Amino acid sequence: MDSTNLDLRREGSPVTDSQPVPRFYDDLDASLLEAWRLLRRGVHDRRSPFHTPAVANLRDDGCPTVRTLVLRAVDERQRHLRFHTDARSAKFREISTDARVAVHFYDAARKVQLRIDGRASLHRDDELADTAWRAMRTFSRACYRVAIGPGTHVETPHAPCNVGRSPDPEAGRENFAALYVSIDRLEWLYLAARGQRRARFAWIDGEVKGAWLAP
Amino acid sequence: MDSTNLDLRREGSPVTDSQPVPRFYDDLDASLLEAWRLLRRGVHDRRSPFHTPAVANLRDDGCPTVRTLVLRAVDERQRHLRFHTDARSAKFREISTDARVAVHFYDAARKVQLRIDGRASLHRDDELADTAWRAMRTFSRACYRVAIGPGTHVETPHAPCNVGRSPDPEAGRENFAALYVSIDRLEWLYLAARGQRRARFAWIDGEVKGAWLAP
Repeated sequence: MDSTNLDLRREGSPVTDSQPVPRFYDDLDASLLEAWRLLRRGVHDRRSPFHTPAVANLRDDGCPTVRTLVLRAVDERQRHLRFHTDARSAKFREISTDARVAVHFYDAARKVQLRIDGRASLHRDDELADTAWRAMRTFSRACYRVAIGPGTHVETPHAPCNVGRSPDPEAGRENFAALYVSIDRLEWLYLAARGQRRARFAWIDGEVKGAWLAP
Repeated sequence: MDSTNLDLRREGSPVTDSQPVPRFYDDLDASLLEAWRLLRRGVHDRRSPFHTPAVANLRDDGCPTVRTLVLRAVDERQRHLRFHTDARSAKFREISTDARVAVHFYDAARKVQLRIDGRASLHRDDELADTAWRAMRTFSRACYRVAIGPGTHVETPHAPCNVGRSPDPEAGRENFAALYVSIDRLEWLYLAARGQRRARFAWIDGEVKGAWLAP
């Protein structure tokens, strides 16, 4: 099973909890709704910790690796997340080989952690990629124009990618990829001194099944 | 190679950067020193995002998985990090099988990301475990006393773990494990509109070798 212990439970305060009890506290369905709400908010609120989750995949040598990615879109009905990446990156190559990913969200102030298991798909030449590219601001496209792919060894620190304008707004398009994560399972954790709440949600044939877990 | 693209570079502002240039900006050695400084601070400053990194490992089925863990100690000389875990957790079992882990730190305000590749070791019955257990506050030990191991399915939400006192301060000790991560490589990323700085540090025979990467 994938349920791994979260050492954060030991971060709870020893004194009585003075926080109000949120309405989702003992409610599986409401906990899942709150998870979706925080994910949607993470897309649009750049200051939310949910804007920058940690995404893990497997490297070529089978080791796990994690980095921050910016959450670009959430689709609750289709159960996917969207990110952007450079097709020259190691991440792109690795995920092309093994699509299994984990996405981790943690908001210390809200005391919520989400752990998502999913499968990634990479889109360079289709409508999904075109739509994401068109929605991107011009300055955000600049990094895809730089001549040296990300992660390449360089002798001296690299020039900024967000400078210079290209007369061609399509420059760099060939290096852009949309990364979709299809959500298979979602684990919810709410931290509270009065008792943590941990639950797992899994979708089977489009039907969600939720269950409480011991924190 | 493990260098994976960080989509965060697209988060830079298009306007000229008004932040002062930090002294480590174009200095590999100083960047590594800053990384160690932030890690040490993460141990003691509960409000630092470095206090709660995301730790990835491989599940039994080979999928990557990530969760937040509390950073308990950093040893720069021995190049390791310490965490705590419950020996009944899936994490303990999984890491017993495959010790390869990745540890991810991200401080949005400081604009620093660290990605660490390492190997984990689990300690239940030795001096390392005893020392960590003795240093733990009484209320923090309470979770190791609960009868149901973390991640176990439960019919109803779980009782709080931080309530109740045991007359025996050693109760729960059998479920406690110290998790050490030995650092093999560390990747540094500093986000700035004037140009990101990305570098990788690897230790071979105790000697560190650093190199700049294209962000």
